[in-house]
Order: sequence, then C-alpha cells, then structure tokens
Amino acid sequence: MSNFLRNTWYAVGWSSEITGDLFSRTLLNESILIYRLPDGSPVALDNRCPHRFAPLDCGKLLADGVVQCGYHGLKFDRTGHCIANPMGKGKVPSRTKVRSYPIIERHQLLWIWMGHPDAADPASIPDYSYITDDSLDQANIGNYLRVQANYQLIIDNLMDLTHVGILHEGSLGNESMLAGQLELVESGNDVCANLWMPQSEAPPYLRNRGPIIDQWLDMRWTCPSSLSLNIGGTASGEPIERPSNFNAIHILTPETEYSTHYFYGTHGRLNPDDTIEQMRKLQTHAFLEEDLPMIEKCAAMMGPTQDFWASKPILLESDAAAVRSRRILDRAIAQEAASTCVAHTTE
Amino acid sequence: MSNFLRNTWYAVGWSSEITGDLFSRTLLNESILIYRLPDGSPVALDNRCPHRFAPLDCGKLLADGVVQCGYHGLKFDRTGHCIANPMGKGKVPSRTKVRSYPIIERHQLLWIWMGHPDAADPASIPDYSYITDDSLDQANIGNYLRVQANYQLIIDNLMDLTHVGILHEGSLGNESMLAGQLELVESGNDVCANLWMPQSEAPPYLRNRGPIIDQWLDMRWTCPSSLSLNIGGTASGEPIERPSNFNAIHILTPETEYSTHYFYGTHGRLNPDDTIEQMRKLQTHAFLEEDLPMIEKCAAMMGPTQDFWASKPILLESDAAAVRSRRILDRAIAQEAASTCVAHTTE
Amino acid sequence: MSNFLRNTWYAVGWSSEITGDLFSRTLLNESILIYRLPDGSPVALDNRCPHRFAPLDCGKLLADGVVQCGYHGLKFDRTGHCIANPMGKGKVPSRTKVRSYPIIERHQLLWIWMGHPDAADPASIPDYSYITDDSLDQANIGNYLRVQANYQLIIDNLMDLTHVGILHEGSLGNESMLAGQLELVESGNDVCANLWMPQSEAPPYLRNRGPIIDQWLDMRWTCPSSLSLNIGGTASGEPIERPSNFNAIHILTPETEYSTHYFYGTHGRLNPDDTIEQMRKLQTHAFLEEDLPMIEKCAAMMGPTQDFWASKPILLESDAAAVRSRRILDRAIAQEAASTCVAHTTE
Ligand code: FES
Ligand code: FES
Ligand code: FES
Repeated sequence: MSNFLRNTWYAVGWSSEITGDLFSRTLLNESILIYRLPDGSPVALDNRCPHRFAPLDCGKLLADGVVQCGYHGLKFDRTGHCIANPMGKGKVPSRTKVRSYPIIERHQLLWIWMGHPDAADPASIPDYSYITDDSLDQANIGNYLRVQANYQLIIDNLMDLTHVGILHEGSLGNESMLAGQLELVESGNDVCANLWMPQSEAPPYLRNRGPIIDQWLDMRWTCPSSLSLNIGGTASGEPIERPSNFNAIHILTPETEYSTHYFYGTHGRLNPDDTIEQMRKLQTHAFLEEDLPMIEKCAAMMGPTQDFWASKPILLESDAAAVRSRRILDRAIAQEAASTCVAHTTE
Repeated sequence: MSNFLRNTWYAVGWSSEITGDLFSRTLLNESILIYRLPDGSPVALDNRCPHRFAPLDCGKLLADGVVQCGYHGLKFDRTGHCIANPMGKGKVPSRTKVRSYPIIERHQLLWIWMGHPDAADPASIPDYSYITDDSLDQANIGNYLRVQANYQLIIDNLMDLTHVGILHEGSLGNESMLAGQLELVESGNDVCANLWMPQSEAPPYLRNRGPIIDQWLDMRWTCPSSLSLNIGGTASGEPIERPSNFNAIHILTPETEYSTHYFYGTHGRLNPDDTIEQMRKLQTHAFLEEDLPMIEKCAAMMGPTQDFWASKPILLESDAAAVRSRRILDRAIAQEAASTCVAHTTE
Repeated sequence: MSNFLRNTWYAVGWSSEITGDLFSRTLLNESILIYRLPDGSPVALDNRCPHRFAPLDCGKLLADGVVQCGYHGLKFDRTGHCIANPMGKGKVPSRTKVRSYPIIERHQLLWIWMGHPDAADPASIPDYSYITDDSLDQANIGNYLRVQANYQLIIDNLMDLTHVGILHEGSLGNESMLAGQLELVESGNDVCANLWMPQSEAPPYLRNRGPIIDQWLDMRWTCPSSLSLNIGGTASGEPIERPSNFNAIHILTPETEYSTHYFYGTHGRLNPDDTIEQMRKLQTHAFLEEDLPMIEKCAAMMGPTQDFWASKPILLESDAAAVRSRRILDRAIAQEAASTCVAHTTE
C-alpha cells in the first residue's frame, strides 16, 4: 500500500516550468498533466487517456484549453470531460473523462491537491509569500532536483541541521556549528527546529559579520513536506535581528515511495554584494554534491523497502525535530486512511 | 502464469536471418536455438543444455546438424537427443535430451510450433504467399523490431487504423482519414477490419491517384498475432480494384509478456516509380518514430502488469475489431488451458 | 531466505586492496567496512551507521582506528562502539554500536568470520601458505573479478575441469584432455577432484615438457568456497612429481545470492622462463573471456532464482566432485540453520 497523505497541497512545479506546452510530472505514483489556459491559469488532469492509456502530454494543446490525445485523437476539456471523438461517427461514451485536480498558482509555485476536491482549501497552501515581496530581485528560485530516495529521508536531513557541521564542512558549515542548541517549537501542523550557535565560526556566506559570530539556522516544516529555513548571524554583542531577511526554500513532493521532487532556492541577501548566481552555485553544490549522494546512499543501505522504523534507528537529541515531524505525518496519514473522506477514484 | 497460446504457429525469424550459424531467439519466455541442416532445412531446439544450462548457441554446429555444447561438449542431434559425451568414459544418461520443436520455412519466414507437436498442422500457417509471387522484386521484407510492450497492445494498434489520421499525421495519414467507415468481417479465426475512406486526402504514397481519392486500409488478423494490410486508393469515379496489389506485413511474436518481436515489410507497388528503399524508409519511420514510442508509453502507463481489462479501457466504435480479436484470442487461450492437449514439458 | 553458511571464514580482500583508507565490500548481502589500525592490523565492522544508516566508508578514519560517520559525525572505535557524539550536548545512547566481525590477515588475504564470533577459530582458515613460501617472487596474486552468478555455479565450473578441453580449447586446454580419469578424494570438509590425463596434448604452458605428456589437474575444494588447483605434466616415462610446485588460487565469496567475489592468482613456475605477467594474462583471459561469460549465461538461463536442483540438471560422471561439494555445503548450511549457535544479530 502506498502511504501518502492525499488531502494536502503538494508543489508540482515552479511557475517558470509550466509554459505554453503540455507538461507532465509523476506525483504519488500518478502521472499528472499540467498546462495553462489561454488566460494563464493552470489546469491539472490525469495524464492517462482512458481509451488506450496514451500519455496525454504526447498529444496537442488546442484552443480554449482543450487537449487532444496523440494516439487516436479524443479531445478533453479543462475539466477532464471528453468532448469529441474525431473517429468514425464520433460517438463518445458518456462517462469518458479523466480526473481533474485542483491546482493553484501562488508565489511562483504551482500547488496541486491529490485528495478529495471538496476538501481543497487554498488557505492551507504553505506560505512562501516572501518569494514575491519587494526584494524579488534577490530571489534565486526555479531550481529542481530529483532524488532517488523516499521524501521522509530528505525531511530527516533538513530537520537535523547538525549535519551541516559534518557533511557540509567547508561549503555550508564547519565543526564549530555542531555544538548548537536546538529549540523545538510546535504550532499546529508546523514544527520549527531552531538551531542557535553562539560564538561559532562564520561560514563563507556570513564572513562579513566577523570570523566568530552568533548564528542561527531556523527551520520550519509544514506538514507534509514543505520547509523553509531562516539563516542569519550577528557579531557578538550586536543586536540580533532574528529572523533575518534571508530564507532558503526546500519543498519536497513524493514522485514514488522511492523518489522525490525537490524544489529549492533562496530569497534575500546575506551580504550586500552577493549575487543570485553565487547563492545558486553554493546551494546547488551543497545539495547535488553532498546531501543528495549521502541521502541516496542511506536509502540504498536501508534496502528495497526503505522502511525507517523497521530499520531501528538510534535516536539522538539532535533527531528530536525530525522524529516529531515523522510522528505528525504518520498520524495524519493514519487518520486520513481511517476517514471516509479520501478520494482515490476518478469519480 | 504466462498467458500465451501454444498450439499455434509463431514466426521466429525471416529466412534471411537464419544462415549457416547457430541462432537463438526468446519466444514465449523460452530461449530457442535455430539452425539449418546441410540441406538447408531448419531445426528448432530448446537452447538450454540439460547438463549445466549453457545456451547451446554458444557452442558449435558440427557436421550433419549435430550441435555441441560450448561448456563441456555434450553433442545433440537434430531431434534434440544427446548422442555423445566426450568426457571421461563417455556415458550418456538415457534421458539426456533437449526438446525439439516443429519448424517450417514458408514464404521467406520461419514458423515454429511451441505446443503439442502432434497438433502441428502446416496447413494452418498464416498465408503470406504474396511475398513470393512474381512481383518479388517489389518485396520489402526482412525487417525486424523489438518492442517493449505486450504483443496484444500492438494488435490493438493495428486493428484500429483510425490512429493513422492522428499518430501518423503527415507520414502515413492525415485527419481526413479519421471519418472512415469501419467494416468488421469475421471468418473462422480471422478478423478483418476494413476501413473505407471515401473522398479523403491522399497520403504521399497515393498522391499519384489525385489529391482527393477513395481510399481503403483493409487489415486481416489471423489468430494469434499475424496481420496483413491491403492498401489502396482510386480517383473518384474510377473503377475500384479492391484488394490492391499492395500489402503491408505485420507479424508479431511474444518474446515475454512485456516484449514482442515485430516482423514487418511491404509487398507490391503503389506508384510505378516507388523503390523498395522508399517503402522501407516510410514504413520504418512510422513504426520506429511514431508507433513504437507511443505503444511503449501506453504500456508504461498501464503499470508493471500491463493488464488491459483491469485498466478499464473506454471502448469506442473504432475499437470493435481490436476488441473482437482480443476476445477470440482470450477464448482460444482459455480453451487450450482447459484442454489436456497442451505440452509444456520436454517429454 | 538467504542460504549462506555463516560460521566459516570468507576471503574479503587481498592484503594489497586494504591500504590506509576506509574500504567496503558487500558479503552475504551485508555491507562490511574494512580498514587497518595504525599497527596495520585489520578491522571489520558493519558499514551501516545505526543513526541514519549512512555508509561509514563515506566518513573519515581518525587516529587510533576511530571511524567518524560522514553524515552527522558519530564516532566508532575499532570494536564498533560509538564513543562520541559531536552534536549538541554529546549524549550517546548506551547501545549505540555497529557489529564487529573477526578478521584475520594470512598469506596475503584478509579472512572474515560472519557467524557467531565465539566459534571463529583461526586454525580453520583455508591453507594458502604456499603463497608466502620462498618462491614468492613467482606469486601472481591480487587479482579480483566480480561475477554476476551464484557462487555455487562457479564451484561447479571449477570442480569439473573437463570443461577445460571445450570451453578453454586453445587457451588453457584442448580436446585430448577430455578423456582424463577423475579421482574423487574426500577428507573432512575437503573434496579433491584429481584429473589424470595420460598421453594428452600439452597446453601452451606445459609445452616445454614435450608435445604429448602425462598431465594432471588436481583441484582441492575447502568448504564452503575456497579452491586450489595443482597443475603439472611430465614427459612419458619420466618420474612423476605430483603435486607440482605450481598452484592456481580460486577463492569465492558470495556478495549476494546472485553475485560473487572471485579472488584468483597463481603461484610457482611451470616453465623456467615464465613471467608473472604471462601467467596473469593467460589466467585472466581464460576467466574473463571464457569462464565468466559462460557462467553468467548459464545463470541467466536458470531464471531469476538460479535454483540448481529445481532446474533438474542431468548428472554425468564428470559431475561427481561438483555434486559431492554441493551436498557437503547444503548439509553444512542445513546443520547450521538447525543449530542455535548462529548469530545474525548485532548482539
Ligand atoms: S489512447 Fe487516447 S484516443 Fe486512443
Ligand atoms: S552445460 Fe552443456 S555440456 Fe555441460
Ligand atoms: S547517519 Fe551516521 S551519524 Fe547520522
């Protein structure tokens, strides 16, 4: 049984990824077709033609948001209903349709709802409003990676930032950051893991504050898999402005049980002379060369099912936030499975 | 459980593929050894040595059609019996043999019978006699593709030629062909899907009949997986000679449940100045660049079991012939499974 | 269920492979970390960090044989106990450790014990003392191959050397060797398959004894998977010195049920002017170009489970030694499974 929360919003792509063409991405083991109507508003449909199962993104986008299957030409409107059969006498069986999904564009991201459509409340989309605030010229966004590991292993990685001192030594961190004090704050379905590292060695991107500074890495996790990290540091004795105006975006969406879409970026300015390109390079290097290989190797060491609790992990103090998030997510999935409100069908 | 019809003839190769060497091809999940006797007649044996399971095609073809295993040297005659053990004192256990299969060469193709040998009636080999008629100089044959999809998905493709108007738009067809009238004719285990497209735009290979012509695409399916397509067109008002002297060959043989051997070609002449090379290019382009990727993508969308009925396809009028073929084939497989005449063993 | 003998010594690497760095190799489906202490003595630990399952060989080797995990920095001593947690307040849960395995270096090989540590008796390490005798300058050792087949299929290959006359015709053997007489000698858990080939054609490496000689290939198998082959030949009528001072090393260690580590080499001198490089070339060619492809093909022909007895092999006289070894090994595995002495846990 797949084990995903369905009644929730998942990021399915950056605004910049969905242009004038048909686009598809697999989420929660399902191939989803995404495109825009003439007015730019997004549409999400099941990507599988109900006739002979051709992927609809291999077809054509016609006028008015009508999609034509590339195999035998059935036409579907923006609600997923088949509105034309160009073959023979053109009869369309009455129930010919593909499932349509609520999709909303907000703050440069497209969010999809894979659960029961009636429960889709736009107010519960995770808040990345900082992306579109007036510092937009410092938004390093639109970055995407695919990770060959269960998404919860990446949440574990992000919710325990002590790894920055070891795995990212020399790039994002250093050993002096290991001794940080972790504060765990829960509010609703959010878990905040705030790491306070007084009198620690400044990493390159905070070097302008002095060699030894008071630093913080404040991570906020929103159930199931949207994270945001506030980063800052202050020379000793200076007034601390926490949160800073610098945030790192980490948004995860399960592709399958064993692979994950990773949308990432940064927003704001740590040093007056930082460029977007520098931030992108630093972040991409750390993710692609350090986190991603390590997470994929851990996943491989866990064996084909990647079953976390069955692998009997040792739990450390530094795991408190990650374990808290896992427990909240496990509980939400179990509650949803127990309720009757879930819609897995195309009806 | 594998789900193949066994008491039937399958094409295993073109005559031109089986030369002086040992050759092997996997059919119905079984690796088959094929070679020729000194007089040219073909032999088909189980390709797995009964000693330590070496593939016999890695051995040597000796005089008189004797095959020697390349691992420890056991020798097998054309009937599959082990006739010599070169090791030690040379004793051969009495039941040492590999299964032999009826194989017949006809009309440039080799046909194998994977079921009970007593039931192998050469009269039931599908009729491709046109390949060797006096227009042989216009026979574009010997073409082979391997498709990563269940063979029935390819039959579906061929038995519903309305896809020519969409998938092959600009190469083999155009949208004006979509409105064709389908006539379904059943005779014994054959299903004919005859598509009549009056007053439709001529495709490139019929352009010499005029821009708007009366066209036909008459497909004949012989259970389980041999197809032949008669193609023609006539300027409006001219007398119609149907069938034409142009046929396209489509012969499918399951390799596994999820992969298929595809033997294809054409025979005859549509335009006086068509060359064999032009026909091969047109046909290979359409199969390799259009049909094959689409069929493999549909198979992938169906998930690992590629279970057609479980995927609950919408059935359209244009599916009538494909569905008829599926029902006849399903019934034949079920009947065979129920009978006691099937031989899956090497006895 | 995996089906390996555990209370036994397996070769895990050549001495030359384990240098100053962390090294890992998968044995019996388990990833093992191997490294050396400052005094050169070897250590073998479970390669999987008990915290978040990072492979420890991606970490760092610190002073005194302490290994630091590369993900969050836990430190493990040579016995596998976690001795430091650099994160936060540094608490280490009491049972934080990785399993440690007895490992012994002997005669240029490292041997590991994957079963119950109390049963690990160094006296039962297979005897390859000839590697370090005074002809060491003629030791062609340190060679390694990975074979995509169950290790028992390679034992079958080695215990029936009649295949040398067919598979290695022209490289290691010739057809005149097929008529050899097999003598089967059992002593304890060793099986010797001694092949005596009087008046047979000399292979290249024995050509200096004359064109037709009395030859022997005397293979000794030590349960479960260590083999040694004594090779020699004498001109007819000359006194026979058997064993010769030339041995070929064949040591197998299961990586998984379907793949095997193969450590091989030669020791001694057949011709006064043979060089180590010539022997390495000859042996590597025969294994890499002839045995390995054949064994991997046989494994593939046996299907995904590679189940030997279920495949119902024909048994020939020349199989006597291989079958004897299989029966001894099967019995040892069954006895071990029945006993309570096996330790699969990390306790
Ligand atoms: S598969 Fe889409 S129209 Fe046939
Ligand atoms: S495997 Fe064919 S003779 Fe041994
Ligand atoms: S995985 Fe090894 S210290 Fe965390």
